[in-house]
Amino acid sequence: MAQKPSIPKGTRDFSPAEMARRNYIFDTIRSVFHLFGYHQIETPSMENLSTLMGKYGEEGDKLLFKILNSGNFLAGVDPNLLNEETFLKLTPQIAEKGLRYDLTVPFARFVVQHRNEIQMPFRRFQIQPVWRADRPQKGRYREFYQCDADVVGSDSLLNEVELLQLIDEVFRRLKIRIAIKLNNRKVLAGIAELIGAPDKMIDITVAIDKIDKIGIEKVNEELSERGLSDESIAALQPILQIDGTVAERLARLEELLRDIPTGALGVQELREVTEQTLALGLDAELDLDVSLARGLNYYTGTIIEVKALDFAIGSITGGGRYDNLTGVFGMPGLSGVGISFGADRIYDVLNGLNLYPEQLGAASQVMFVNFGPTEAAASLKAVKQLRAAGISCELYPDLAKMKKQMAYANAAAIPYVAIIGESEAAAGTLTLKNMAEGTQATLTVAEAIAAIKG
Amino acid sequence: MAQKPSIPKGTRDFSPAEMARRNYIFDTIRSVFHLFGYHQIETPSMENLSTLMGKYGEEGDKLLFKILNSGNFLAGVDPNLLNEETFLKLTPQIAEKGLRYDLTVPFARFVVQHRNEIQMPFRRFQIQPVWRADRPQKGRYREFYQCDADVVGSDSLLNEVELLQLIDEVFRRLKIRIAIKLNNRKVLAGIAELIGAPDKMIDITVAIDKIDKIGIEKVNEELSERGLSDESIAALQPILQIDGTVAERLARLEELLRDIPTGALGVQELREVTEQTLALGLDAELDLDVSLARGLNYYTGTIIEVKALDFAIGSITGGGRYDNLTGVFGMPGLSGVGISFGADRIYDVLNGLNLYPEQLGAASQVMFVNFGPTEAAASLKAVKQLRAAGISCELYPDLAKMKKQMAYANAAAIPYVAIIGESEAAAGTLTLKNMAEGTQATLTVAEAIAAIKG
Repeated sequence: MAQKPSIPKGTRDFSPAEMARRNYIFDTIRSVFHLFGYHQIETPSMENLSTLMGKYGEEGDKLLFKILNSGNFLAGVDPNLLNEETFLKLTPQIAEKGLRYDLTVPFARFVVQHRNEIQMPFRRFQIQPVWRADRPQKGRYREFYQCDADVVGSDSLLNEVELLQLIDEVFRRLKIRIAIKLNNRKVLAGIAELIGAPDKMIDITVAIDKIDKIGIEKVNEELSERGLSDESIAALQPILQIDGTVAERLARLEELLRDIPTGALGVQELREVTEQTLALGLDAELDLDVSLARGLNYYTGTIIEVKALDFAIGSITGGGRYDNLTGVFGMPGLSGVGISFGADRIYDVLNGLNLYPEQLGAASQVMFVNFGPTEAAASLKAVKQLRAAGISCELYPDLAKMKKQMAYANAAAIPYVAIIGESEAAAGTLTLKNMAEGTQATLTVAEAIAAIKG
Repeated sequence: MAQKPSIPKGTRDFSPAEMARRNYIFDTIRSVFHLFGYHQIETPSMENLSTLMGKYGEEGDKLLFKILNSGNFLAGVDPNLLNEETFLKLTPQIAEKGLRYDLTVPFARFVVQHRNEIQMPFRRFQIQPVWRADRPQKGRYREFYQCDADVVGSDSLLNEVELLQLIDEVFRRLKIRIAIKLNNRKVLAGIAELIGAPDKMIDITVAIDKIDKIGIEKVNEELSERGLSDESIAALQPILQIDGTVAERLARLEELLRDIPTGALGVQELREVTEQTLALGLDAELDLDVSLARGLNYYTGTIIEVKALDFAIGSITGGGRYDNLTGVFGMPGLSGVGISFGADRIYDVLNGLNLYPEQLGAASQVMFVNFGPTEAAASLKAVKQLRAAGISCELYPDLAKMKKQMAYANAAAIPYVAIIGESEAAAGTLTLKNMAEGTQATLTVAEAIAAIKG
């Protein structure tokens, strides 16, 4: 039965060192969520496929992990479906449940299902894994965590201001320098209308999103290929040339979109959000970017994206405002705004810039050497006292050679080693060795506690 | 498309109030694991079915949630298997992965897969959900958390002593009074040998486990039905009548099993573990219970079970020593000992005894009332100062009636409400209302911070 064990591709084991780093990220985000008054919820890993299917487009449906029904899953199934050609039709008959694909659809389902228990506006956060049957590649996994915060039941732009403050605080604590890019879906709609191509908003956005990479000329070529008239492309040029400070960009956009009500409203929203945010102060850079268009089918107002300034990687946080989160579950008109932190990319940034606090990995602050039964009994008494003082520690359980025990302490990055040999046991003391400095001293337990804590 | 949404049976949503209670339990257990020098790992939710199948018995295999292969799962499948009668043979062809059933098998797989990166003895803990396609009933879920700590690569009984201290500390912090019951698999084997029925150990254990419920006579009847001879049953009686203190029970067992080497070794191990544990001191009651037999096919030495003293519920924590965790993955002879906290039952005990700390549920300590744009801007400045002082707070985002805003604060159990109206905004002050006491005072932000923290 012996076999070399492995894990499914696209999934990961996390070692103690990796867990320490991941917990540092999750704990930071969780603390800030709490500080901003968000309430945590959790939803089941499995949802009914009827909840998940059709919410992520045709491609998304394919990427859902589906769970085979328990027992005889073929009982009662139409025998005509049991062949390769009809597997898509067979699927819902043999699999009723699937693993969640994101935290947004389960949140929408939660809000509708528990609408009578929830107090609006509802500030919720959720930190849980999601699963996607994507082709695994560098930085893309089949199981990964999302960290989402949303406020629903309020259309006040103060929520946007608060979420920008929250993003700023998370990255300030993580010591990652960021730029927060803002846009507004209504501005995008206004631009499309302005240039006489109201049905081409997505084409325009996809094209102008590439302006930094390919330049204006290529963007204009692509717009032409996508069916925009020469007049529309010409009318778009002043938009593409907007630059300067946030205030200058706002003023120029306001001028250009003055006569397009939707666009003007979008600019007004951007103005309110940015002015209030800047008045409160922000460590992050704040940029307006009319090419920003994430989740276009979904967002209806503010669009937010965060980039790390000192590390080349995609967006590390994003979000926006939506007007109809729960409509598909029979509860229309619920407005909200939310953001999602990309824990795996943040992990890559912290690794790349080496921004973790020191000594993140050690479980124990002190390891007691094991010299035999009598000394071990004395050590366990000291261990208990140290733990009562809040110091994590352990006794090496086996009577191994000193060298082996010290090698263990070294490998585990334990900062102190305590020795209770025959003389220490008799005197009621211990010898405390500082592993980094190579110094040691014989101390009472109380003195040792003071030395380790100080 | 509107439909009343629901979740799969046997799964749960956790509301903010429930999350606060669950986090209290998980945080307590996690802190104590850290204090005792255990290192956290995480493994993927999905494992290859080849890793999981055959590890939990035939019944366990049926309870595994299996994940349908992505894409056309019927491509290349033997058409003869595509019918109701052969669904069991079809399963491995259309499902290669399954959700983990416990944390022990993934841990064994982890140890073997990462054997070259792990420092032995390896003290690991793991807090993650597991999934079982069990029939849902009260207190039994299809998705639930396990909280496991194990030491592998050491056969020292000091590990047992440490784990008993750890159990004691967790329940001391949770304020749950407990009894820890101990037994040893070698004692059970010794008893079976002593009474001339070495092949009947499991029958004996299953029967005598019921002694408290059905009494000695019924137990003897059952033993007879299970094929034990009258002589064996007679020889068992002195064992069943053992009582008294831990020391008295140990002395009596020692006497009875003196000539059975395995049994005598088991008693010796129990003696070492209990004497050292009692020497260190324990809040919990410590009992010897020769009828204790959990996981008999698996454990080879110490067996541990924890019962709540003040609440009727099954075992809330259990564990034991094993000698061959990783043999099935090609790495024989690895000894270890571990325990598992049953978070859901602990949750029930804390609820039943109302042992949660006060104010566990509130996300925010302070809610600022919203009186309009100018006051809201002043409030957000104060909010920022409070948060910088570590006080979680929020501004009500909408310009709603005062009554509605206060109702929200009440429902969310927020202990303080802060008011910055026209006069406070002008004076740079705020009015702080203590919701429990009904008192209020007009303060500077610095004074408010001091009042809330004090």
